[in-house]
Amino acid sequence: MRKIIKNGTIVTASDTYFGDILIDDGIIVMIGVDLDDEGAEIVDASGCYVFPGGIDPHTHLDMPFGGTVTVDDFESGTIAAAFGGTTTVIDFCLTSKGAPLKSAVETWHRKSAGKAVIDYSFHLMVSEVTDEVLAELPQIIEEEGITSFKVFMAYKNVLQADDGTLYKTLLVAKEQGALVMVHAENGDVIDFLVRKALEEGNTDPIYHALTRPAVLEGEATGRAADLTALADSQLYVVHVTCAEAVWKIAEARKKGLRVFGETCPQYLTLDQTDLERPDFEGAKYVWSPPLREKRNQDVLWNALRNGELQTVGSDQCSFNFKGQKDLGLGDFSKIPNGGPMIEDRFTILFSEGVQKGRLSLNKFVDVVSTTNAKLFGLFPQKGTIAIGSDADIVIFDPSVERTLSVDSHHMKVDYSAFEGMKVTGEPVTVLVRGEFVVRDGLFVGRPGYGQYLHRRRFGEA
Amino acid sequence: MRKIIKNGTIVTASDTYFGDILIDDGIIVMIGVDLDDEGAEIVDASGCYVFPGGIDPHTHLDMPFGGTVTVDDFESGTIAAAFGGTTTVIDFCLTSKGAPLKSAVETWHRKSAGKAVIDYSFHLMVSEVTDEVLAELPQIIEEEGITSFKVFMAYKNVLQADDGTLYKTLLVAKEQGALVMVHAENGDVIDFLVRKALEEGNTDPIYHALTRPAVLEGEATGRAADLTALADSQLYVVHVTCAEAVWKIAEARKKGLRVFGETCPQYLTLDQTDLERPDFEGAKYVWSPPLREKRNQDVLWNALRNGELQTVGSDQCSFNFKGQKDLGLGDFSKIPNGGPMIEDRFTILFSEGVQKGRLSLNKFVDVVSTTNAKLFGLFPQKGTIAIGSDADIVIFDPSVERTLSVDSHHMKVDYSAFEGMKVTGEPVTVLVRGEFVVRDGLFVGRPGYGQYLHRRRFGEA
Amino acid sequence: MRKIIKNGTIVTASDTYFGDILIDDGIIVMIGVDLDDEGAEIVDASGCYVFPGGIDPHTHLDMPFGGTVTVDDFESGTIAAAFGGTTTVIDFCLTSKGAPLKSAVETWHRKSAGKAVIDYSFHLMVSEVTDEVLAELPQIIEEEGITSFKVFMAYKNVLQADDGTLYKTLLVAKEQGALVMVHAENGDVIDFLVRKALEEGNTDPIYHALTRPAVLEGEATGRAADLTALADSQLYVVHVTCAEAVWKIAEARKKGLRVFGETCPQYLTLDQTDLERPDFEGAKYVWSPPLREKRNQDVLWNALRNGELQTVGSDQCSFNFKGQKDLGLGDFSKIPNGGPMIEDRFTILFSEGVQKGRLSLNKFVDVVSTTNAKLFGLFPQKGTIAIGSDADIVIFDPSVERTLSVDSHHMKVDYSAFEGMKVTGEPVTVLVRGEFVVRDGLFVGRPGYGQYLHRRRFGEA
Amino acid sequence: MRKIIKNGTIVTASDTYFGDILIDDGIIVMIGVDLDDEGAEIVDASGCYVFPGGIDPHTHLDMPFGGTVTVDDFESGTIAAAFGGTTTVIDFCLTSKGAPLKSAVETWHRKSAGKAVIDYSFHLMVSEVTDEVLAELPQIIEEEGITSFKVFMAYKNVLQADDGTLYKTLLVAKEQGALVMVHAENGDVIDFLVRKALEEGNTDPIYHALTRPAVLEGEATGRAADLTALADSQLYVVHVTCAEAVWKIAEARKKGLRVFGETCPQYLTLDQTDLERPDFEGAKYVWSPPLREKRNQDVLWNALRNGELQTVGSDQCSFNFKGQKDLGLGDFSKIPNGGPMIEDRFTILFSEGVQKGRLSLNKFVDVVSTTNAKLFGLFPQKGTIAIGSDADIVIFDPSVERTLSVDSHHMKVDYSAFEGMKVTGEPVTVLVRGEFVVRDGLFVGRPGYGQYLHRRRFGEA
Ligand SMILES: [Zn+2]
Ligand SMILES: [Zn+2]
Ligand SMILES: [Zn+2]
Ligand SMILES: [Zn+2]
Ligand SMILES: [Zn+2]
Ligand SMILES: [Zn+2]
Ligand SMILES: [Zn+2]
Ligand SMILES: [Zn+2]
Repeated sequence: MRKIIKNGTIVTASDTYFGDILIDDGIIVMIGVDLDDEGAEIVDASGCYVFPGGIDPHTHLDMPFGGTVTVDDFESGTIAAAFGGTTTVIDFCLTSKGAPLKSAVETWHRKSAGKAVIDYSFHLMVSEVTDEVLAELPQIIEEEGITSFKVFMAYKNVLQADDGTLYKTLLVAKEQGALVMVHAENGDVIDFLVRKALEEGNTDPIYHALTRPAVLEGEATGRAADLTALADSQLYVVHVTCAEAVWKIAEARKKGLRVFGETCPQYLTLDQTDLERPDFEGAKYVWSPPLREKRNQDVLWNALRNGELQTVGSDQCSFNFKGQKDLGLGDFSKIPNGGPMIEDRFTILFSEGVQKGRLSLNKFVDVVSTTNAKLFGLFPQKGTIAIGSDADIVIFDPSVERTLSVDSHHMKVDYSAFEGMKVTGEPVTVLVRGEFVVRDGLFVGRPGYGQYLHRRRFGEA
Repeated sequence: MRKIIKNGTIVTASDTYFGDILIDDGIIVMIGVDLDDEGAEIVDASGCYVFPGGIDPHTHLDMPFGGTVTVDDFESGTIAAAFGGTTTVIDFCLTSKGAPLKSAVETWHRKSAGKAVIDYSFHLMVSEVTDEVLAELPQIIEEEGITSFKVFMAYKNVLQADDGTLYKTLLVAKEQGALVMVHAENGDVIDFLVRKALEEGNTDPIYHALTRPAVLEGEATGRAADLTALADSQLYVVHVTCAEAVWKIAEARKKGLRVFGETCPQYLTLDQTDLERPDFEGAKYVWSPPLREKRNQDVLWNALRNGELQTVGSDQCSFNFKGQKDLGLGDFSKIPNGGPMIEDRFTILFSEGVQKGRLSLNKFVDVVSTTNAKLFGLFPQKGTIAIGSDADIVIFDPSVERTLSVDSHHMKVDYSAFEGMKVTGEPVTVLVRGEFVVRDGLFVGRPGYGQYLHRRRFGEA
Repeated sequence: MRKIIKNGTIVTASDTYFGDILIDDGIIVMIGVDLDDEGAEIVDASGCYVFPGGIDPHTHLDMPFGGTVTVDDFESGTIAAAFGGTTTVIDFCLTSKGAPLKSAVETWHRKSAGKAVIDYSFHLMVSEVTDEVLAELPQIIEEEGITSFKVFMAYKNVLQADDGTLYKTLLVAKEQGALVMVHAENGDVIDFLVRKALEEGNTDPIYHALTRPAVLEGEATGRAADLTALADSQLYVVHVTCAEAVWKIAEARKKGLRVFGETCPQYLTLDQTDLERPDFEGAKYVWSPPLREKRNQDVLWNALRNGELQTVGSDQCSFNFKGQKDLGLGDFSKIPNGGPMIEDRFTILFSEGVQKGRLSLNKFVDVVSTTNAKLFGLFPQKGTIAIGSDADIVIFDPSVERTLSVDSHHMKVDYSAFEGMKVTGEPVTVLVRGEFVVRDGLFVGRPGYGQYLHRRRFGEA
Repeated sequence: MRKIIKNGTIVTASDTYFGDILIDDGIIVMIGVDLDDEGAEIVDASGCYVFPGGIDPHTHLDMPFGGTVTVDDFESGTIAAAFGGTTTVIDFCLTSKGAPLKSAVETWHRKSAGKAVIDYSFHLMVSEVTDEVLAELPQIIEEEGITSFKVFMAYKNVLQADDGTLYKTLLVAKEQGALVMVHAENGDVIDFLVRKALEEGNTDPIYHALTRPAVLEGEATGRAADLTALADSQLYVVHVTCAEAVWKIAEARKKGLRVFGETCPQYLTLDQTDLERPDFEGAKYVWSPPLREKRNQDVLWNALRNGELQTVGSDQCSFNFKGQKDLGLGDFSKIPNGGPMIEDRFTILFSEGVQKGRLSLNKFVDVVSTTNAKLFGLFPQKGTIAIGSDADIVIFDPSVERTLSVDSHHMKVDYSAFEGMKVTGEPVTVLVRGEFVVRDGLFVGRPGYGQYLHRRRFGEA
C-alpha cells in the first residue's frame, strides 16, 4: 500500500525543503509539492522535520561481557532505537580465537532473527589473523555482506589484539574492500594502571576514568593511523572522546589518509565528573573510553562540524544498575562497561547540536545517518531521502519539549544516563521500508520485521 | 510550460539516484520514478548525470585592469559559463576610494544588465573603511543583497588594503552577517621582489611566479585567519594555490574558526613550468597567485576531499594573448593577470576529479555548486536539485571524450589555457530557471535573461 | 694590577666547578685550584658563584619616547646594571627617516660617552631602506661595528616599517653579516583597536593589554619568520611574551631557520592582572607587548629550557610614575611604554629560574650572558669565563635573601616593578675588565670607564 | 706526574680559547696562558684543538646476538674508541627474564675487567618489571651506580617488552632518579613484515630496510613519549634515524617533557641505498633501525643544531662480514644487526659536522661529549675541560686529511662502513685521567687501565 508523507520539511545531508514524499512498496518513489495519489494513505507531517532514519553504526545488543549479558536484546533494543528515530543498527558479532568466524555470525543471526523491529547488520570482530581466518574472511564478506572488521587495542588478555594483528587486518581489508574499526586505547598500560589503582585501594567508579587517561587514547589512535598509512588501508576509529584522539585523526586526514572517526552522544554531553556521583551512581557512567574533562566537548562538536570526525554512534551497551553495574561495588574494574544510548542518540544530537547552533540541520543528518550508510556500504538504500531509497523515515516534531527518563524510555535497562535532562524534539512517527514502526508515539511494529542487511564493500557505495 | 527531465542519474551534494524531475514555472516541483505529466515537455537525460547548475563564486567579467579590460563581458562570459555547466556567477564589483559604494554597484549593474544569459550576483570590493563606507554598507546589504566583501592584501598602491582595513571589514561583516573574502598574498614584499627582478633584467613571464613565492601566500593567509580569530568573524580565502596556505586554513578550522578556502581549476591541473613555455606563451599562464610547483596539486585535491578547502571558483579574468597579454613583453609585471576559466571549471573538476577517483560525484557537486550557494546566501534557491529550488540544471554526458581548445570554446578570448587537453564529459544541455540556455550543445539562451540575485546574509541559508 | 678571585664556584654556560681565577691587565689569564700569585690582589668568593658578567642585549637609556625621555641615562642606567650583575649593555640607536644613520650613531655616542660605567654597544634602528641607507650601512658596520638592525612592526605612523622594508633589511643583513631584530606586533590592527577603545571610553591602563592581544604578536612573529625564510637571512625576535609567538619561532627553527627569540623578566614573572592595579598603578606595568595571561609564563620558561627561546633581555625603558607614566591618566595610549628592568634581570632569572628549578645554573648563564654575546658578535671577549676573555665577572652570593624595592634599587626611576618581591641571591661584587665597579655591595666604578664595543658580524664569533 | 698540554685551542661545549692545561694526578688543576711548571711533562698541542674526550653513550662490546657475538670486545673496542677520540663508553648489560639483574651485571663486569683501556660504565636492559626486579633495582642503582635502563620496543619474542613494562620502568625511573632508554620501533608489525618478505622470497639486505619503515619508528617514538608524559618521567630515545621520530621528540619537548634523543654517525652520513650494494655488501649496512632515505640527514643535522636531538652515540656493534654478516645470505633477517662505529663517531661528527658548517665547534663537543655526561650522571667528572674534571683529553689535529678504511682502523672487525671516505681531522693524542692512551697516533695504553664508573642519578649532575 502506498503512503504520502505530507507537508513536512524534508531534510537530507545537503538539502532542506518543503514537500511531500510518496512511498510505494517500501520505497521512496516520488517527492514533490502537493503530491496527490488516489488510495495512498496520507501521513501528516505538518510542522515537523522529515529526516532519513537514523543509522546507528555501533551497538552491542544481547552481548555477553564479563560474565553477564547486556539487558537489551535485539527486541527491546531495536524497539528503543525506533522510538529514538533510528531505523538501522549495525551490531558487533564477537568471535572467539580458534572458532570459525561463520559460527560466530550464526550465533548473532540467532540472537537477532525474529526479534528486530528495524533493519540491522553486523560488524565482525577480529582477534587474530590466522590462515584459517584469512581463508574464511572473503567468504564471510561474500555470503554475509559483512564488510567491516573490529579490532580491539585494549582489554588486555580478553579482546585485545596485538599490532601485528591490526596490521594484518588492515591489509586484508584493503584487499577485500572492507573497513577496519578500532577501539583505540593502550590496553597494556591501562591494565597496569587498573591493577595499581586496585592495589592502592582506589576502587570507586571515578578510578575507571583515572586509569584510562586521554593520552592513552590519543596514543593508540595515532598508532592505528600510522599502521593504516603503512598498509594504505582504511580505518574507522570508534567512540572518539578527546582532543588527543581527534588531533591524530585530523593529522592523518590532512595527509590524505582514509581515516574516519566516530564519537558518541555521551562524550558530547557528559563528563568525567559524572563518575563521581555519590551512592555508586558513578557506575552508570562507566564507558570505555571513559567520559573526559568537559573541555573536550567543544573539541568534539567542532570536529563534527568541520569534518575531522564523521559520524555519531551510540555504543549502546546497557547493563542494569541493580544486579549488573553493582558487580563493581568495591572494585571499579568489575563494573560492566557501557550504557544505554540507542534511544537517545538521535534526539541528543538534534537538541544539543542543531538547537544549540553547533550543527546545521544538514550536518546533523549527515552524522547520524548519511555518512554512516556510506562508510558501511548501505548507501543509497539507507541513509537518505531520495528516489529509490528505502522509505526509512522519521517524522520529527521539533516543538516538543520533554525530559529524558528511565520512566519514559523504552529500553529495558533500569536507568537513564540522561535522567532529568530536558531536550527539544521527538521522533513521533517512524517508518521502516514504508511500514510504521512507531506511529504518533506508539509502538506499532513487529519483532521479526527487521531484515538483515548485506552490505557493500568499502568504497562501492 | 512544464518540463520533465527523464531517466537521468540525479546527483546532489549528498545523493545519487535514478529518477525524473518535473519543472513548473522554473521551479523543481516533483522528483520521482517514471514521472508523467500531460503536456509537459520531455527532456531525455538517459545515460547522463543530472547535476544542479554550477555556481561560480569568483569571476571578473568586463573588468578594467592595468589600463585594459577583460575580453569577456557579461554576455560572452555567461554564454561560455552556460556551455560549461555554470548557471550562476558572482562577479566582483570594484570600488574606488572616496567614491560612493552605490555608484560602483550601479556601474556593475550597467555592465551586466541586458547581457547576462544566466543568473548573477556581485561581491563588493572594500579598499577602505571610512565613516562613509560604514554608513553605506548596511544599505548596500539591505538593498542590493550584497553580503560578501573582498579585501586585497596584495597589489600595493593599487588595490591593497592595510591590515587595519581588513580587520575593520571583518568586524563589520560579523555585525552585518557578511562574509569577508581575501586575496591573500603579501603585497609589500611582492612589490619589492618585482622591482628587483626587473632591475636585474629578469623580465620573462616565469618571473611572475618567482616574485610571488608560496611562502608569501601562506603568510598572508595565516595573517587573515589570525585577524578573523580576533574579530570572531568569517573569512573566505579566494584562489588558494599551495600547501602553505591550505595548512593555515586547516589550522584555523581546527580551532573552530569560520574560515573557508576556495581553489581554482588552474591550480589543480597546471603548474609553474607552464610559465616557462617558449615564445612568450608563458604569459597565458599568468595568474595571481601564480601557478605553483606540481606537488601542490595533490595537497589541493586532498584538501577538497577532506574538507580543508570548500569550494572551487574559476577566477575568470580573460585577456587576449595578442593585444593584451603582450603588453607584458619585456616586462612580466605588465602582463595582465588572469585567464579564461569560466567555461572549463565544471568539466575540469569532473574529468580530473571524479573520473580520476579524486572526488566522489557528491563531493564534486558540493564544491562546484552547493557549498558555493550556501556560503554566499543563495541556498536553497540555487545549488541543488530539490523541491522548490530553481530549476538550474545541467545534463551532463560522461561518455563524451573531447579536447579543450580555443577553437571550440565560447569565450571571446583568443586562447585556451587547456589547449589540447583531453577531458571526459560534457554539459550537453543546461537550463536556468527551467529554460534552456544550452540545448544539445547549442546556445538557445538570450542576453538579458539572466537575473540579478539578492543574496541572504551569511549563515542565514 | 693582578687579581685572584678565590674559592668561588665558577659557572659558565656549560660548566660548574670550584676554582680560582687570575686576572691580569683586565683579562682572565689563568683558572685553577689554589692559584697563588705574588702581588695579586685576592678577592674572596667563598660561598659564592662566580658568573660571567651579564649581557643585556636590549636597553633603552636616555631615549626619547612620546615627548618625554627615559629617566635613566647611560650613567644611572649602567650603574644600576652593574649592581644587577650586568657588565655589558647593547642599547638601541634610534634613527629618523631621511637623516644620515651616521648622525644618529653620533647622537648615541654623545649620550653614552663619559657616562657609562660598564661596556656598551649599539643596535641600529632601520625605518626605511633607501638607496642612501643601503649605501651607508656597510660603512656603519665597518666603522662602528654595529651588526644588528632593529625593525618595528608596530607603532604605526611613528616607528613602524612596512613588510617591504623588513624584507629588504633581512636581505642586507644576510649580505653584510648582520642580525635583524624585530618588535613583532601587528601595528595596523593595534592602531585601530587603540582608537576604538578610546572612542568607547576605555581609557584605563588595562586597555593597553586588551588592545594588543597575543594573537597579534603571534601573527607578526610568524610573518617575520616567513620573510626570513624567503630571504634566507637571520632574525632575532625581541621581547617574546606569549605561546603564540614562541610557537612560531619554534616552527621556524624546526625548519632549520636562523630565527632566535628573546624574552624578558617581566613576562616570566608578572602578568596581565598587574595592569589592573588600582590608583593608576597599572600604568607601571605598561610594556609593549603587554604582560600576558599567567599561563604564558610556563611556556616561556619551558622555551628557555628547551632552546626554543635563546636569550633574556631587560627592555629597560624607565619612566617615572609621577610626571611621566601619569601622562596617560585618562588615556592609556599616552602612558609611556616600558619599565625599569636593567637592574633586576639577572637576579630575577637566578631567583625565579635556578632557585625554583626551572633552569640549570649553566642554562641561566647561557641566557643572561653567553648566547647574547655569541649572537651579537661579542664572544669570546664577553659572555664567558675563559682564558683570554675580558674579566667581566660577577661574584654572586646565593645565600642572600632580599626584597626588591625602589628604596634599594639604583635606578633613578621612582618605582620598582617588583616592589616587595622576595628574591634569593645578590651580585655582591662586579668587575669589568678586571676593575671593580661594585665591591661588596658598594659602587666603586667611574662614569666613563665603560668602553664602546665594536661588534663582529653575525656568525663570526 | 704532572703534564702541561700547551698551545692548543681548547674547546668546550660553550667556549673556544687558546691556552694551556695543567694536569696533576689525572685531574685538570689549572688552565691558563703560558703555564709553566717545573717538572711537568710538556705535551705540545700547537695547531690542534684540545677537546674533552668523547663519551660514547651507546656501545655493544662482547655482546651475544642471534647465536653469534660481536667481534670487538672491551679490549679491541676500547682501543679503537681511544684512537677515535673517545675516552668513556657506556655499554649495555643484557639481562634475561627470570635471572637476577645482579648476575647480568656481574657477567658484564667479567667481560670488561682487565680489558678496557678507557673508562666505562653500563646501562641495564629491562625486559620485565616483576616484584623481584622492583626489589633489586634500587640496589643496583645504589651499589653499581647504574642509573639508566634500556627497554626494547622491537625484536619481538626476543628482547621486546610490552608497553606495560615500559610504563612501569618509567615509573621506577622517576622514583629512583634514572633515565629510561628505548629502542623505538614497532616490533609487532616489523615481525609480520619480515615474515611476509621472506615468504615472498625477498631475502636481500635491502629488505631489512623495507621491512622496518620509518613510520614504525615514528610511531613507537611517539608512543614512548606519550607514556613518559603519563608517568611524568624521563626518556632517552636511542638511535633516532628519521624525520618521523625527530618530530615526535620535538613535540614532546615543546610540551616541556624530559624527552631526549640520540642519533648516530651512520644515520647522518649513510643512507638506504647502501643496503643495495652488490655482492651482499649491503649486509655491512644492516643496522636497526635501518639507514633511511637521504633526505632525513638534513633533518637530523638540523635537529642536533637546534636542540631537538641532544646526543650522538655510535651504537657500536661489530660483526665480521665473513663468518657473521654472511649468516644472512639468502635471509636478510639472519644478518646480525649492527656495525663498527666506535672509532669513527668523533671524527665523522667533526668532519661532516664542524668542517661542513653544520655544527659549531661548541655544539660538536656538546653532542659527542658534554651532554652525554650530563644525561648519564658522569658530569662534571667527565665531559668537559674544567678545573677538577678528569683529564680525559683529545688533542685533535684538524689539518690532517685522511681516508677511513679497514686497513687503518683499530677495530678487529673485517670491514669499515666508511671504507674510502675522506675525512678531515684526527685525534692524534688521547689521555684518560691524565695518562696517555694514544700518543702521536700510537697506542700506549694498557688493558685494564680503564675504570668502571659509578654514575649519579638522573638530574643530580
Ligand atoms: Zn569499545
Ligand atoms: Zn562498543
Ligand atoms: Zn585575486
Ligand atoms: Zn579574482
Ligand atoms: Zn619593542
Ligand atoms: Zn625595546
Ligand atoms: Zn637498538
Ligand atoms: Zn644499540
